[in-house]
Amino acid sequence: MKRARVVYSGSIHHAVDQDGRLLLDNGKTVREEEVMWLPPVEPKTVFALGLNYADHASELSFQTPSEPLVFLKGPNTFIGHNGQTIRPADATYMHYECELAVVIGKMAKKVKADNAYEYVSGYTIANDYAIRDYLENYYRPNLRVKNRDTCTPIGPWLVDAEDVEDPMNLTLKTYVNGELTQEGNTKDMIFSIPVLIEYLSSFMTLNADDIILTGTPKGSFDTAVGAEVITEIEGIGRLVNTIVD
Amino acid sequence: MKRARVVYSGSIHHAVDQDGRLLLDNGKTVREEEVMWLPPVEPKTVFALGLNYADHASELSFQTPSEPLVFLKGPNTFIGHNGQTIRPADATYMHYECELAVVIGKMAKKVKADNAYEYVSGYTIANDYAIRDYLENYYRPNLRVKNRDTCTPIGPWLVDAEDVEDPMNLTLKTYVNGELTQEGNTKDMIFSIPVLIEYLSSFMTLNADDIILTGTPKGSFDTAVGAEVITEIEGIGRLVNTIVD
Repeated sequence: MKRARVVYSGSIHHAVDQDGRLLLDNGKTVREEEVMWLPPVEPKTVFALGLNYADHASELSFQTPSEPLVFLKGPNTFIGHNGQTIRPADATYMHYECELAVVIGKMAKKVKADNAYEYVSGYTIANDYAIRDYLENYYRPNLRVKNRDTCTPIGPWLVDAEDVEDPMNLTLKTYVNGELTQEGNTKDMIFSIPVLIEYLSSFMTLNADDIILTGTPKGSFDTAVGAEVITEIEGIGRLVNTIVD
Repeated sequence: MKRARVVYSGSIHHAVDQDGRLLLDNGKTVREEEVMWLPPVEPKTVFALGLNYADHASELSFQTPSEPLVFLKGPNTFIGHNGQTIRPADATYMHYECELAVVIGKMAKKVKADNAYEYVSGYTIANDYAIRDYLENYYRPNLRVKNRDTCTPIGPWLVDAEDVEDPMNLTLKTYVNGELTQEGNTKDMIFSIPVLIEYLSSFMTLNADDIILTGTPKGSFDTAVGAEVITEIEGIGRLVNTIVD
């Protein structure tokens, strides 16, 4: 099943996909054009990976990491599908980053990779824009790179884990103004989803609705005000975003 | 006024200090021993400073930073006054860190240092334990250093800003098993509270109840299971914490 959080007629609803329309939790069926999309899960603890695809590390002239480079993201940075991302006035380089987002389904402590998928409720798409001007550091980007207001569109759907046959073999694509500019596959992650869950849960507790943004492959380029940026993941959906001033 | 969040008789209450007793939001007055303390503000976006006192940077053999080194902390790590902090089994060095915590009172965007105190609702105390084993990096500590479950006691009171005459001139002290082991003054911060608010709000929005942990002075040492650690700030209070296995 595909799940969303949307605003319809002044209130927030949970919704499921019904043949391209949205079945709201009040029983009403509406068209996509009638709603405003929110992040499919309310962002609480959100982890993001730095340099988790070797080809992306290489294009930034960084070595591939020997253990996961994980940082946290604040709630201010998330917006939903079809939202507008403000390009910061001080940004010289604003790079989109198409990423598979893994949503945790239940409390996870010291989970082993072999059982890690039991703790995943589903998947969605994030576009984890980076303000590259301030990337002074290998280990993790600073807040000015990765925590700007509105700079992390996420959604549109949370796709149930049981409906994703192999999350480690999905094509990722980004289109800027209709042109394909980034293409990769989740199989090229350096640290796989099960390894990331084992790693994080080895030293802290993961909770339901925590989100892990698993990194982006090669092909990040600067995007200008006015651009329509679509990040797409095979079987998960298409996340549409517009950059504004 | 001094404000707290406590659990009494099975439910969460807001409370204010009334001559050493707690006046609950249901009108009842209770003794401190009758409640369990929660963090005085529910942790949402919590910022923490690395190396914001020159003498502490020096004891870790780091240069003093030329701009604020800020990282985010997840909600899993916070506990209230009189709580138990679990010493991670893999930790060789677990250092307490007494820090003044600044609580934001209203939305702040592009605030100038001169007006920054208008955006502060109050102050509390945090003990931002660090697992030093993993401090491989100048810019910001990784999650294993600063995001362990229960490793950031905070409280007991949120003291209203109007009751703190000069937050940039407060003595900080830590006692381990009754012995004074850390002493400093907030006047020795490298980046002052107004500068930190100007810095953060220059590139992102701060919201009510966001918290800034302003860093710790020199004097961090390893603490063992069984230790009682009291972090104390002049005019703000005493935060009691016990380390358990």
